[in-house]
Amino acid sequence: MTPPPVYPADPDATVARPGERRFEGPAPAYDDAGLVFIGRIRSPWTERSQCPKNVGRAREAGQPAEIRLDPRWREGLAGLVDGQWVLLLTWLDQADRDLALQMPRHADAPRGTFSLRSPVRPNPVGLHLVQIVALDRETGIIGIDAIDVLDGTPLLDIKPYLASVDAPPA
Amino acid sequence: MTPPPVYPADPDATVARPGERRFEGPAPAYDDAGLVFIGRIRSPWTERSQCPKNVGRAREAGQPAEIRLDPRWREGLAGLVDGQWVLLLTWLDQADRDLALQMPRHADAPRGTFSLRSPVRPNPVGLHLVQIVALDRETGIIGIDAIDVLDGTPLLDIKPYLASVDAPPA
Repeated sequence: MTPPPVYPADPDATVARPGERRFEGPAPAYDDAGLVFIGRIRSPWTERSQCPKNVGRAREAGQPAEIRLDPRWREGLAGLVDGQWVLLLTWLDQADRDLALQMPRHADAPRGTFSLRSPVRPNPVGLHLVQIVALDRETGIIGIDAIDVLDGTPLLDIKPYLASVDAPPA
Repeated sequence: MTPPPVYPADPDATVARPGERRFEGPAPAYDDAGLVFIGRIRSPWTERSQCPKNVGRAREAGQPAEIRLDPRWREGLAGLVDGQWVLLLTWLDQADRDLALQMPRHADAPRGTFSLRSPVRPNPVGLHLVQIVALDRETGIIGIDAIDVLDGTPLLDIKPYLASVDAPPA
């Protein structure tokens, strides 16, 4: 395993795999807008090597996970129900932000960052469709069926999944 | 129409509709992490009153739209193809960030922010599933079938839609 890339990325860092390429030119300041972490994900995955590559594989692993929502935001949970599917946005804080072309392990040629679901992207926001399996609005602890991020990953948002807009029209 | 809320929200501002409530306590600094705008959405919607409430209604309106990706990021488009469904993340820069309970026009009681797809949320990141209808990697202009955001809305990310992870398992 190569060590995890640091954030913010060192602009002089070499790429990890042959064929990968950084975006050209000076890195931006990453200050066009600011985020607040509203909680954290508790997951079974503490090492990058064991973290599933997507939520489907995480589900196959049969290991549930939790959202821990910080106190200020808990009133916003009203209306969510047990069993509901929700879309989580997370901040993938260990991801490099500056790769234009990436070489996935499964691929035989490098591919553009926007054609991949890799955590490495200019804004490393993860998107995860998960099912609520337990919901405690008082403590802000929300059980979810699976997750494909490392333990402690910051949470940015919870949105209800709506098939009418979140799936391609039939 | 009430005027659009300003960002950052005035902590002393009153709520727009009866039953709505702000999160309690001092507002956070919104600086846990920083974003870079990688481009802008060009849409037919220049006034909030005409902007469709979701991408389904935008599609029914039959008005296509465009992504204009800034030059630095265009190399990351390699591998995307015409006709592909992609998930866009946008920064809804006119949205208030501090409502815990909201009163949607269609509802008869206020609901928690995380049970709604309203742009008003602690991190106002929009999620939009759209189809690529034209793709020019050189100019960074990407035609899309529809969009439910105002003209000029900043773009944060493009991700390929994968039914295997982006729809609930059968």
